[in-house]
Amino acid sequence: MCTKNPVIVIHGGCGKYKEDFQEICLLLVKEAALQAYRRSQQGGTALDMVEEASMFLENDPHFNAGCGAVLNECGEVELDAFIMDGKNLNAGAVAAVRNIANPTKLARLIMEQTKHVMLSDRGASRFAKAVGFPEVPMESLITERSRERLKKNLAAVDSQIEHETIGAVALDTAGNVACATSTGGLSNTLMGRIGDTPCIGSGGYADNLSGAVSTTGTGEAIMKITLARLITFNMERGMSPAEAADTGLKCLWTRLQNTAGVIVVNNAGDWAAKFTTDNMPWAAVAGGKLYYGIALGEVRTSPIEDICQ
Amino acid sequence: MCTKNPVIVIHGGCGKYKEDFQEICLLLVKEAALQAYRRSQQGGTALDMVEEASMFLENDPHFNAGCGAVLNECGEVELDAFIMDGKNLNAGAVAAVRNIANPTKLARLIMEQTKHVMLSDRGASRFAKAVGFPEVPMESLITERSRERLKKNLAAVDSQIEHETIGAVALDTAGNVACATSTGGLSNTLMGRIGDTPCIGSGGYADNLSGAVSTTGTGEAIMKITLARLITFNMERGMSPAEAADTGLKCLWTRLQNTAGVIVVNNAGDWAAKFTTDNMPWAAVAGGKLYYGIALGEVRTSPIEDICQ
Repeated sequence: MCTKNPVIVIHGGCGKYKEDFQEICLLLVKEAALQAYRRSQQGGTALDMVEEASMFLENDPHFNAGCGAVLNECGEVELDAFIMDGKNLNAGAVAAVRNIANPTKLARLIMEQTKHVMLSDRGASRFAKAVGFPEVPMESLITERSRERLKKNLAAVDSQIEHETIGAVALDTAGNVACATSTGGLSNTLMGRIGDTPCIGSGGYADNLSGAVSTTGTGEAIMKITLARLITFNMERGMSPAEAADTGLKCLWTRLQNTAGVIVVNNAGDWAAKFTTDNMPWAAVAGGKLYYGIALGEVRTSPIEDICQ
Repeated sequence: MCTKNPVIVIHGGCGKYKEDFQEICLLLVKEAALQAYRRSQQGGTALDMVEEASMFLENDPHFNAGCGAVLNECGEVELDAFIMDGKNLNAGAVAAVRNIANPTKLARLIMEQTKHVMLSDRGASRFAKAVGFPEVPMESLITERSRERLKKNLAAVDSQIEHETIGAVALDTAGNVACATSTGGLSNTLMGRIGDTPCIGSGGYADNLSGAVSTTGTGEAIMKITLARLITFNMERGMSPAEAADTGLKCLWTRLQNTAGVIVVNNAGDWAAKFTTDNMPWAAVAGGKLYYGIALGEVRTSPIEDICQ
């Protein structure tokens, strides 16, 4: 066990994952959790932890965030990302931004360097240029797999697609919670579509008075019940992260016959990773242990003493 | 009294209104309420009522919505609008859209003709073109007053600015609730800034199981507590519209030392128009009467039998 007790929970998007894709995605979310944990061991805050994990997964082409993001109707990458600091309710978001490899980092800059919460499209690019944030050619974010997915137009034919949105929630040693969520949206969306991810209270929410949440699924359904905020409301009313997550997912099914996945941590360090799809790769570090899984009901553990020394 | 009992409540934005501006804004929100009421008398739904009122106020240059919207840092009009149907939780929004005179109508088309909730900037324009929605020269939306406001850079020097965002909530004769909110944002914002208005649960929310809300104020603060959703949550828990409005505004002050205004109707037809700024022009039609006011605590009434016959 390390001296303090930070908690980090990661998801790599809910959906139905093919066999050969499951192992690599699980490996990657485990590594993201460990990296975020190491960051906390070096004094990183909850905000640093969720940013670290998000950037790691944005940089990996297996996830629908940063490099590897799905393509809109025009074959373009447009990215949404959100970050929130539970200490003061500060939040930052980018929506439909192009040519950015790490939208979560840009969202954090918007939070820290402007009076605003969300910048979109041309305005987000203009801000990136103004602060010297690196822009990249769109081609560098597009993978062969993304092109194939657009061709197959998965969004139109399969309701339980692989979303692969990524997200993180954390509690740091000072008792602050934070969340981050990052996505390329759904394949073949209309240009300029903004989903749940950058929409505060839908794709994520963080408040030290309750806890932090990151969601994944069909954005439009998640938005209609403001899923992340619903979960924190229920935690404010005394529910545990697991109860609040289950209640939120049940509401999504009852009201809209839709499925999703969520990760939750509360301000006491209790946490949950829940989903109503077949799969969601997730990993958590809590109490000196690594927890992870990808199928319904699956919880595996391994010790992590080695990295705490 | 008319045969059924629809309810409509309108706001014209919270803030500190100059004397000479108060009377005209109050007159206009009264007229917007009456127009929406007439629409209901002709069989219009709650959605039709809030759309009617929003378009009327968007077309009037006195409000910061549609024509008369404030200008961003580049001297441009970028509009945000939101509409939501409490019957099925369907919602539509445009964010940072240009060259559109009635963004609320475009938001409704997004809700009704796409699988999405929100389209932004270039994507919203592309959708408008695709469906033949009229685009207008930006100049036609800019008023001399908007130019002067940008010069004075009001946003930076006065925390209690005239927001003049417009909004409407309604209950129709079938028991459905709806909300709409429309704004040009804050003067001198960064390009592409998205505020609370199009963000579901922040600028508005509507659910037949509780009621409908539209908010006005500094978007970034409203977003951090998802003010509209907070109010519907509290109505779900049994609070009246007035109690839920007061509780939401109190939370905004306690957590973020910020002020705002809200209009609320519940599914039983109880309604409230509350604000913590000096002024908010508002008007309501309920129980065959017109109610209106602009100062704190002010509630005036007049009969409206004449229009129901």
